[in-house]
Amino acid sequence: MNKKFDVVVIGGGIIGCSIAYYLAKENINVAVLEGQQVGQKTTKAAAGMLGAHSEWDHSESFFTFARNSQLTYFHLQEELKELCGIDIELKKGGIFKLAYTDLEKKQLTPLLTQTSARWYNEEELKEQIPGIHPNIIGAAYIEDDVNVLPVSVCNAFCKGAQILGASIFEYTHVFQIQKNDSHYLIKTTNGNLEAKTIVVASGVWSNPLFGQLGLHHEIIPVKGECISVRSEKVALKHTLFHEQKYIVPRNDGRLVIGATMVDNEWNEKPSLGGIESLIQSAKKMLPEIQDMKIDSFWAGLRPRTLDYNPFIGTHPEEDQILFATGHFRNGILLAPATGKLIRDLILKRKVNRNWIEAFKINR
Amino acid sequence: MNKKFDVVVIGGGIIGCSIAYYLAKENINVAVLEGQQVGQKTTKAAAGMLGAHSEWDHSESFFTFARNSQLTYFHLQEELKELCGIDIELKKGGIFKLAYTDLEKKQLTPLLTQTSARWYNEEELKEQIPGIHPNIIGAAYIEDDVNVLPVSVCNAFCKGAQILGASIFEYTHVFQIQKNDSHYLIKTTNGNLEAKTIVVASGVWSNPLFGQLGLHHEIIPVKGECISVRSEKVALKHTLFHEQKYIVPRNDGRLVIGATMVDNEWNEKPSLGGIESLIQSAKKMLPEIQDMKIDSFWAGLRPRTLDYNPFIGTHPEEDQILFATGHFRNGILLAPATGKLIRDLILKRKVNRNWIEAFKINR
Amino acid sequence: MNKKFDVVVIGGGIIGCSIAYYLAKENINVAVLEGQQVGQKTTKAAAGMLGAHSEWDHSESFFTFARNSQLTYFHLQEELKELCGIDIELKKGGIFKLAYTDLEKKQLTPLLTQTSARWYNEEELKEQIPGIHPNIIGAAYIEDDVNVLPVSVCNAFCKGAQILGASIFEYTHVFQIQKNDSHYLIKTTNGNLEAKTIVVASGVWSNPLFGQLGLHHEIIPVKGECISVRSEKVALKHTLFHEQKYIVPRNDGRLVIGATMVDNEWNEKPSLGGIESLIQSAKKMLPEIQDMKIDSFWAGLRPRTLDYNPFIGTHPEEDQILFATGHFRNGILLAPATGKLIRDLILKRKVNRNWIEAFKINR
Amino acid sequence: MNKKFDVVVIGGGIIGCSIAYYLAKENINVAVLEGQQVGQKTTKAAAGMLGAHSEWDHSESFFTFARNSQLTYFHLQEELKELCGIDIELKKGGIFKLAYTDLEKKQLTPLLTQTSARWYNEEELKEQIPGIHPNIIGAAYIEDDVNVLPVSVCNAFCKGAQILGASIFEYTHVFQIQKNDSHYLIKTTNGNLEAKTIVVASGVWSNPLFGQLGLHHEIIPVKGECISVRSEKVALKHTLFHEQKYIVPRNDGRLVIGATMVDNEWNEKPSLGGIESLIQSAKKMLPEIQDMKIDSFWAGLRPRTLDYNPFIGTHPEEDQILFATGHFRNGILLAPATGKLIRDLILKRKVNRNWIEAFKINR
Repeated sequence: MNKKFDVVVIGGGIIGCSIAYYLAKENINVAVLEGQQVGQKTTKAAAGMLGAHSEWDHSESFFTFARNSQLTYFHLQEELKELCGIDIELKKGGIFKLAYTDLEKKQLTPLLTQTSARWYNEEELKEQIPGIHPNIIGAAYIEDDVNVLPVSVCNAFCKGAQILGASIFEYTHVFQIQKNDSHYLIKTTNGNLEAKTIVVASGVWSNPLFGQLGLHHEIIPVKGECISVRSEKVALKHTLFHEQKYIVPRNDGRLVIGATMVDNEWNEKPSLGGIESLIQSAKKMLPEIQDMKIDSFWAGLRPRTLDYNPFIGTHPEEDQILFATGHFRNGILLAPATGKLIRDLILKRKVNRNWIEAFKINR
Repeated sequence: MNKKFDVVVIGGGIIGCSIAYYLAKENINVAVLEGQQVGQKTTKAAAGMLGAHSEWDHSESFFTFARNSQLTYFHLQEELKELCGIDIELKKGGIFKLAYTDLEKKQLTPLLTQTSARWYNEEELKEQIPGIHPNIIGAAYIEDDVNVLPVSVCNAFCKGAQILGASIFEYTHVFQIQKNDSHYLIKTTNGNLEAKTIVVASGVWSNPLFGQLGLHHEIIPVKGECISVRSEKVALKHTLFHEQKYIVPRNDGRLVIGATMVDNEWNEKPSLGGIESLIQSAKKMLPEIQDMKIDSFWAGLRPRTLDYNPFIGTHPEEDQILFATGHFRNGILLAPATGKLIRDLILKRKVNRNWIEAFKINR
Repeated sequence: MNKKFDVVVIGGGIIGCSIAYYLAKENINVAVLEGQQVGQKTTKAAAGMLGAHSEWDHSESFFTFARNSQLTYFHLQEELKELCGIDIELKKGGIFKLAYTDLEKKQLTPLLTQTSARWYNEEELKEQIPGIHPNIIGAAYIEDDVNVLPVSVCNAFCKGAQILGASIFEYTHVFQIQKNDSHYLIKTTNGNLEAKTIVVASGVWSNPLFGQLGLHHEIIPVKGECISVRSEKVALKHTLFHEQKYIVPRNDGRLVIGATMVDNEWNEKPSLGGIESLIQSAKKMLPEIQDMKIDSFWAGLRPRTLDYNPFIGTHPEEDQILFATGHFRNGILLAPATGKLIRDLILKRKVNRNWIEAFKINR
Repeated sequence: MNKKFDVVVIGGGIIGCSIAYYLAKENINVAVLEGQQVGQKTTKAAAGMLGAHSEWDHSESFFTFARNSQLTYFHLQEELKELCGIDIELKKGGIFKLAYTDLEKKQLTPLLTQTSARWYNEEELKEQIPGIHPNIIGAAYIEDDVNVLPVSVCNAFCKGAQILGASIFEYTHVFQIQKNDSHYLIKTTNGNLEAKTIVVASGVWSNPLFGQLGLHHEIIPVKGECISVRSEKVALKHTLFHEQKYIVPRNDGRLVIGATMVDNEWNEKPSLGGIESLIQSAKKMLPEIQDMKIDSFWAGLRPRTLDYNPFIGTHPEEDQILFATGHFRNGILLAPATGKLIRDLILKRKVNRNWIEAFKINR
């Protein structure tokens, strides 16, 4: 392997694959370097909620970016199925953000000003979801906060990019980047590559690359533990959400319960305490879940920045180096918009100034 | 558990679930009893080729029945997705039945009289499939012999039946059937049930039930071993078929290589010799496959009758007992038509006399 | 397969394999019939505590039988290693039966009358096990209640029996037993066998065989769920036991937490509620366990009789049919003594009358 | 984590854990840094043959070093069992290095000059191993070339080192080493550490560290694929070896078939072609193996130097940096001797000059 590319993306998770897909659509000669297999780490561990509203933290830039990304998914479903045959398993049904107290109900007020959200009172909710916990007093319902199967989205971006001409190198770990006159030399366990432009999309594994590239920014791993259970009955149709925990129904009848948040933890195995807290949260939403049988459990490491917003933008001093990392709990949701934003930055197209400001490296 | 049902189906593979689905659509009170989990044995092991033409053995009844079933799948895809959200992953692309010699080409002549098949000569074939083995002289192409994901079809039938009112009992092993005045008492590890009508759809595990029900028919297990590999490149689009072996592409880029035939073998693990023969067959079709990485391997036990045709029909002496077993290599293909035929027999509807004759128990 | 044996044992768990081992040592022509693979169901799910004292329910016969079996293990370790090379992983360290209240301390009094047990007060205990829960007021310590790796014991019995001439038939499901003049004809999915003597050692799957053999005895499945965790530190040396739950240390540093009891449950997958209760019990014994990472979780079905004692003895009316089933929580502990007792019954040797009375079928 | 150690070993495979064990025995404050879990990569993939003779390439230094290591294992078995309870599963029986032709017989002559080897002619061999291939004309037998379970050895070294005071940090990936006045600062994903002495024992992942430390030495990954099968009969007692392939019997009755050699391959999954070649080699030694059932298959990446000998020694310019990597096919065999040699180099003890010369970095 001794090849030259216009753009090399370091990291084959959903963010890197989305970037490769949108660049390949513009006939750019792009390669993805992945240390293991595409989409098998943080991406695979995600539940896949597209929570543009439910994960909203009241920052306007974040919301418009997330909403743009969410709406892109509604088109991608057909586009990727058509191109490479993969169903991203977009599951309708929306999300109920639950309130148990008047305070929690009040905290939902800003969300309920959005036209895409509406309030369900206790009776409506219990009619809609017969097994819901009796103490719940209502919920905000957002029809558009659907979910997808993250590993399928990532595979579809990857296969789609390949079909459009991109190169994917798996089992290729980058250990050094050298700047030459007109390009970057990327040293990997698998040989060297040249690139005019580099995009770092390495999630929690970005820190050594920040260091190599002269920056002191930091990504903190936040472990998230999940369980999936198998319902023997006709399953839940809607996602339930409360205090950052959720129950997400899959098309095949499984329910995914997620996710804990453990800062600065690199061990990718769930702990006893983490699993216990998930079970307790799930029972508080849907008591009958305690009888369901466990299908599997796992954990993933989400990349978090100090201010919880992602880094999407160019290196402060080298405009042929870009970053797309630090997406924390929202990597699946933000993947399409991130891919398009990086594409536009590389092609020097016009982009939303608010997003540039919100996600730039030096802020 | 001490319940009464109009119909109890014994066996929760794709055949039993299809029967339950078609009965539930008619508002019949139906239950499925499955000793383990639904769709996890023979069904899960199948590659899912809908080879109405490619598995054709020149019996007219078999072909019309298989073709009817195949065409039903084209509707089921939407119907099941709509009803329960599950994509059965019907993958277009059709099948190439390969010829290496003039004799093999000649043997394809009857198939090529079908309007749904057409001949590809060597150049056409090599253009269509660049990596094909150089010794191949041509192939019969059948566009309609697509493939599905068997476990998804079975889950969709099962969830669909549940949504329409059917009961599914997993981990429920039947060990005795007693005839009472007006009904059958079914003794299971999980308690007793009553049924007016019983359908035996237990595949290779049907023999003890034949014995219990006074019959001496026999089902022979035929082990089939499979391997799946992961292609790092843009993958094969079409199924390749030669000498009962095949390479089936999946939507996610994996290729399934199947299947051996080992008569009278109950051990469900692949043998070294079986895996070796699959690899050799696959290399003979697509030489570059030898560099692909193995994803997994497995085996399943196909239920075969003495004359290789399934038993689909009523007990010779008890018309409230029906059989739907012995589908051999064609369980996935024949599941929809089998479900409809059993439904029609139970509802005393008009059915194709040729099919009755071809598949009846005493023949 | 159409063979004749002196003794056919139905069931290839640890009980069946122990019986075959002790019969093969006497040069008896014995075969084991196992529906799946040897030792992969209830046996594999067990933690392997040899709790002759800690599982003691104050019945004298049970205790002497259990203690005899426990002492046999101390010899078997060398004997089986020598014969077939397999280490049964007998792990010394004994067990602490914990008391949190004066009442619990008092309940340990009968146990402490045994010379093999002794009391540890709070300070002694906290010195011995630094991370123990602060509320514990003391514990009964039994040095001889060690543990073994059940799957290794079962494999060693099985391989040992084979070396001594026994035949093992896996994937061989028995569905009918017919009495002929001088022998029994056993019909299996894998063909027929003849036996002069039959031993039913089928655990929770014994009920259909009781029925076939004219008996109305019943085995109730009691699901037991377990978790294993991996300690990154120097691990616990002793088993901890409280309210039927335990933490068993393995040689490789893993800790096994067990086990729940769910009556009449056939589903072999752990439920959310079961796993939660295990975690809570484990934290109550060893709080720091909550940070340990989960290695795996599983469940098994223990065979329980109505009075909780096993059936070990001959059929009331047919003395060439014997039973060895219903060992509930103590199958691993009782396997050697059961093997020897069945051997002695078949060989018409002198046996302990109390054991005969305690475990006979009709009692 | 911000700790100071006398010695930090980078790499938690069998080599790194052996080094930590021998240093901890000398009361040296040692830590092991492992990017994933201890012993789960190259170590876990090894078959565990201690082939001091059978892997001999006629270099005297290599042989004496390997033989020293092999003899150390015979003591370690008891020593590690005593210290931490782990059985390294040393399996006696020795190895037969097979000859099919007169030429192959002749090539065994140098080996047969060793007193620890002896020739078996055709009849002797066929009596010893009834199922052996009929074309074999004889074999060199080496009783001392036994095998161990690599993952157990590595766990025992690791747990043993911990018991003796060593620190083990898993999920801790090293990305930079800085030299300060009196120590090295090691930057990891998991925080920084200080060490007076560093040992690089990172196997195929050593290249970035060579680069960091100013060296241009190179480790080439050589993928080795393996299969394990389960014998239903009384299993093979001895290892069979021919043309770098082998069949190694395990205590539990499984047979491990290994191993291919694929230079410069980073993908850790077996390929179809690799598995096919293993099956063919195994059948050539033991024809009946073709009917055995596959238990699992896997691959590992062996670290090879340009001249096929390991690097065991100090950095040419910095004597507080040592290397222990590049053990190629012999990492398990050489682990004890490597641990002792590194210990002696760090403690400035007297060591065999031939070994120093043979394995030094600049040669």
